[in-house]
Amino acid sequence: MSRKIFHALVDPDEAIRLVIEKINPRPPGVEKVSLSNALHRVLAKDVYSPIDHPPFDRSEVDGYAVRSVDVEWSDELSPVYLKIKGRVKPGEKPVLEAGVKDAVEVATGAMIPRGYDSVVMEEHVERDESVLKVYRATPPGENISTAGSDISSGDLVLFKGTLLNHGHLALLAGLGINEVEVFKKPKAIVFSTGEEVVEPGSILEAGKVYDVNGTLITSYLMEHGVEAYYGGLLPDDYDVIRNRVQDALKKYDMVFTSGGTSAGLSDLVYRVFSDIGEILVHGLKTKPGKPTVIATSNKKLLIGLPGFPLSCYMILVRVVSEIVKLYTGALYNVKTIDAVIPIQIRKQVGKTWLIPVMLTESENNYAAYPVSMSSGAISPLILSDGFVEVKESVDVVMEGEQVRVYLFRDLPEKTRLNVIGSNDPLLTEILRLKGLASTSRILNVGSTGGWKAVARGEADVAPTHLLDEETGCYNTPFLKKYGLEDKAVLIRGYDRLIGIIVGKGNPKNITSIEDFLRTDVRIVNRSKGSGIRVYLDMALKRIASLKGLDPSKISKIVNGYTYEVKTHTAVATAIKQGRADAGLAVGYVAELLGLDFIPLTWEEYDFLIPRKRLVKDSVIKLIDALKHLDEVLDEVGPLFKKYFRASENSGFEKVTCFEKT
Amino acid sequence: MSRKIFHALVDPDEAIRLVIEKINPRPPGVEKVSLSNALHRVLAKDVYSPIDHPPFDRSEVDGYAVRSVDVEWSDELSPVYLKIKGRVKPGEKPVLEAGVKDAVEVATGAMIPRGYDSVVMEEHVERDESVLKVYRATPPGENISTAGSDISSGDLVLFKGTLLNHGHLALLAGLGINEVEVFKKPKAIVFSTGEEVVEPGSILEAGKVYDVNGTLITSYLMEHGVEAYYGGLLPDDYDVIRNRVQDALKKYDMVFTSGGTSAGLSDLVYRVFSDIGEILVHGLKTKPGKPTVIATSNKKLLIGLPGFPLSCYMILVRVVSEIVKLYTGALYNVKTIDAVIPIQIRKQVGKTWLIPVMLTESENNYAAYPVSMSSGAISPLILSDGFVEVKESVDVVMEGEQVRVYLFRDLPEKTRLNVIGSNDPLLTEILRLKGLASTSRILNVGSTGGWKAVARGEADVAPTHLLDEETGCYNTPFLKKYGLEDKAVLIRGYDRLIGIIVGKGNPKNITSIEDFLRTDVRIVNRSKGSGIRVYLDMALKRIASLKGLDPSKISKIVNGYTYEVKTHTAVATAIKQGRADAGLAVGYVAELLGLDFIPLTWEEYDFLIPRKRLVKDSVIKLIDALKHLDEVLDEVGPLFKKYFRASENSGFEKVTCFEKT
Repeated sequence: MSRKIFHALVDPDEAIRLVIEKINPRPPGVEKVSLSNALHRVLAKDVYSPIDHPPFDRSEVDGYAVRSVDVEWSDELSPVYLKIKGRVKPGEKPVLEAGVKDAVEVATGAMIPRGYDSVVMEEHVERDESVLKVYRATPPGENISTAGSDISSGDLVLFKGTLLNHGHLALLAGLGINEVEVFKKPKAIVFSTGEEVVEPGSILEAGKVYDVNGTLITSYLMEHGVEAYYGGLLPDDYDVIRNRVQDALKKYDMVFTSGGTSAGLSDLVYRVFSDIGEILVHGLKTKPGKPTVIATSNKKLLIGLPGFPLSCYMILVRVVSEIVKLYTGALYNVKTIDAVIPIQIRKQVGKTWLIPVMLTESENNYAAYPVSMSSGAISPLILSDGFVEVKESVDVVMEGEQVRVYLFRDLPEKTRLNVIGSNDPLLTEILRLKGLASTSRILNVGSTGGWKAVARGEADVAPTHLLDEETGCYNTPFLKKYGLEDKAVLIRGYDRLIGIIVGKGNPKNITSIEDFLRTDVRIVNRSKGSGIRVYLDMALKRIASLKGLDPSKISKIVNGYTYEVKTHTAVATAIKQGRADAGLAVGYVAELLGLDFIPLTWEEYDFLIPRKRLVKDSVIKLIDALKHLDEVLDEVGPLFKKYFRASENSGFEKVTCFEKT
Repeated sequence: MSRKIFHALVDPDEAIRLVIEKINPRPPGVEKVSLSNALHRVLAKDVYSPIDHPPFDRSEVDGYAVRSVDVEWSDELSPVYLKIKGRVKPGEKPVLEAGVKDAVEVATGAMIPRGYDSVVMEEHVERDESVLKVYRATPPGENISTAGSDISSGDLVLFKGTLLNHGHLALLAGLGINEVEVFKKPKAIVFSTGEEVVEPGSILEAGKVYDVNGTLITSYLMEHGVEAYYGGLLPDDYDVIRNRVQDALKKYDMVFTSGGTSAGLSDLVYRVFSDIGEILVHGLKTKPGKPTVIATSNKKLLIGLPGFPLSCYMILVRVVSEIVKLYTGALYNVKTIDAVIPIQIRKQVGKTWLIPVMLTESENNYAAYPVSMSSGAISPLILSDGFVEVKESVDVVMEGEQVRVYLFRDLPEKTRLNVIGSNDPLLTEILRLKGLASTSRILNVGSTGGWKAVARGEADVAPTHLLDEETGCYNTPFLKKYGLEDKAVLIRGYDRLIGIIVGKGNPKNITSIEDFLRTDVRIVNRSKGSGIRVYLDMALKRIASLKGLDPSKISKIVNGYTYEVKTHTAVATAIKQGRADAGLAVGYVAELLGLDFIPLTWEEYDFLIPRKRLVKDSVIKLIDALKHLDEVLDEVGPLFKKYFRASENSGFEKVTCFEKT
């Protein structure tokens, strides 16, 4: 198989350097906008204060303007008497001037009349008509903000390149500035390519996937100050691509393409770019990200990005954002943080690796857990926080080593609740009810995955319903098995009714797990490590031994045994859509989707929590909700009450093996 | 003086609770928008995945789809031979099915034909026409992402209330969703009041200040998902305010007013609110923030906010944002972090204090330094990071105590460079040149202030040019005086030429500091603690002793001695605008503003840096720039070269007392 060899791969920094050198990206111009239109625009000039602020000597309190020499000897026992000459309100220009032994009433914010040098507060005087008794001496300057003491005329207040937020705008308003010069927004158009992708909203034929990158790139650029448009899908045709790109160059500063995943298509994009412009970068020395092409035509920028969404995303953040910020003129830095790598990473030298990671709190820092990057996966677009760059020359990153993480978005709040483990609909509702939905990250990795995540320090909460075969106990025996007795506690959760979900009216007449062995029944299974999967496997083993079958082979008889999904709703949906006839799940989802349900058992759904995380606000809220589970069940609705029930010990530590009910 | 007494002041949480109870704020409705219009909108419904992702079993590599049973025994020495039956490209629906001992070529992303259960990678085979030699066994599932393994149909992927960013939109696109239901934006109008405020852009008469709150509230609401408009200034007139507010209630969900600083005006707002609606909150039990009024009319919200910008800002963040988020339906939490209070705070019980703070790194945490809040100051709008709430019942917060900080905006990056101390134009340019402008916070508190900030652990860098009277040395003697020898190092900066700045053509014929004693000369001074102020005071003392005057009184003879500004440009601007005749500053600013300059001395401008901060990226960059100061001077332009010069040791530790040159 012959394939185009990419020559002279460059690393990300070199790619950025080449673009800067050749194109010198800069904003397309400057325009004046009013303050009310300036939010999130980029300042095109340094702003020096045109005025002093406050603009005049101003009283900071309600009281009386006095000359400090007049009240120098006053105290509680021997007040000084002054004559009140008048009053100044905020906004008034005083006409009075100070005389010997007199005073003027001033409100907070009022201008100090000429000649007075301090203000004595209301609470330190007594007034009798026009006579003021002053009980306290005020040194010069007391209770006065002098003109320019906050900001002086001529002070540099905002740098050119400032991305204007509400605070900046308020400051500018206070300085009397109602119009600012900002950079015009650069314009970009984004095309997708690839015979395998179709537009979101259209029908998905077999073998096709929906286009992610068009939306990803366009909205990423919009969030970074670019006027970006999605230009649609380009066919696998040299002439069409060339014409569309050439047209686009007339209107836009930047033209983006992405995909396809095949080498053939990136060749096509490369040929078009090279025929209408000059290639600056043909391939990055990164994994992933290699099929990145950067070219210029008439000082405009052409970028072809990788087809896999996560690869595309990482190159957007690592390379494109650095170029885009020059086009916008904004002075931001690409967001990075330092984090600790909790597990060793081995790689070959010769390529820089970009590894998506999920951040979790660790001692006083963040830990960056590599996220397995299946080609084309899209859930990491929201579940990973950024990526680690492991340089070309490095062959191993040791456990505990400090690495730099490039963030996909703002740093996750340290208050984020990482829920890693078993999936449950009631838990979702509890998080929502307690205001934790926005700050929770829920990873459905199954009960076993949750135990491992706690062991690694990754999870705040691991929901679990693992049944121990030997003892018949849920969850408690595993504390010892995983060696977590010192490190974590099990908090008693609730019971949930699980069973077999079947189609409405139970068309295949399924009554027990034994029916899963029938050739006319196809099941949908849960992923390995999930509590329900463990339950099924135990049940199948029992059936095997009853029937005299080989317990290690019985799963091969079950149609659809390898058809795995990660959530209860996914089990129900598969049955609803006819992709399977039966599956195990919590009964709640059957009713939700209008399916039939054959109850099997109440299982104990508990929460494994690292001791150190017990002090976390969000963890406290969750445990508190468990302690008041009956109220929670009242709030979330009657459907839940049929399939979930509180235990006496809900929300409290579970130490003994509860009897199965 | 009679003043309205506020009854039943409530704390912020109670105020929020009252609003929720009475108004039950919620989004004004739901609308469908296309993905391209959904950025930063709020999802109005949970999103469950309508498809499996990937939608089919998909190859993760370039290679050959095989049945694992066929290659079970293959290895490097004994390859298995398979017949190549065809090829599947990405996007194609395979027509083939697996047969015994055959294989199909698949590209990354291609659909796996029915019957094959693994993919052997290109690098583990050899191909000869239609015969494939397989050198490695592949277990079932190898190199295949199975349908739904990333996301299963029916999975809850996004919560109702999610504020959609580029990642969410990309995920939705990948699931084929091209339209989402989002909440309609709530609408608000913002009025300012107060006889003392005028609109930005208009002429500032004596005693007036520019309105800050109109812009602050409007843009804050816009940033938080509200369609907010500024309605202008309302006069101090009951009927006008009432009519405008009543009109506004027809169109808007929320009506805001702010100000005035006088009790009279907040009474007016209160009267209007109470006459057209029901008062929910009349005064907060906070300091500041007391004159906050909340009312409702026809389930709509009326809020009167305090007049002082910083008070207004804190109540916006503490109270209003919690209400606004219910109107928008967004699931965010008001941003808070825990920080350590580095200095003791004493207060009276009975009121909750809101104290603006600046965050700086401390060990593994943030330290929250209270910012002095002069009434009406506006620089804290951008220089403070948030505020601490000290509860009603607390009378003292101990040094080192952990407190909760409500953030005004995103958490400052830990990489931020806190430059606290002496002001210098060249330093500003160095920061800009080194890409540090956006991440630097520059506080001009004078050299002395910088030393104190280092002692408190607050500054990363304290620029300083303090002359020690006894030794005639710059900066070094103060390491001992401040007891900082172990904690900090002095890095040699550069020399700058300071002198007397006078009007163009030197109209008052000023030739030396002695002329500052003339009655016809008015100076502009720098703030206490600045190096130049110290220099001036020493010069005046010398003159006093030469002239036989009392050195402690000589400053009283100098006109304008108490007219203090914080920056060099502010000195020059004061002279340019005729507010003063002379002042001391670095010569650069004289030339910049076209003024005359009488050189006095080259002073040593150095950088005090805590040892622990020497490892910080931004600090390293700054020191590196100092080491290459000649190059920097070349880049920033010839004007700087006349007034600034590198020393041999620029960028290196300064240990001995350098001779003055």
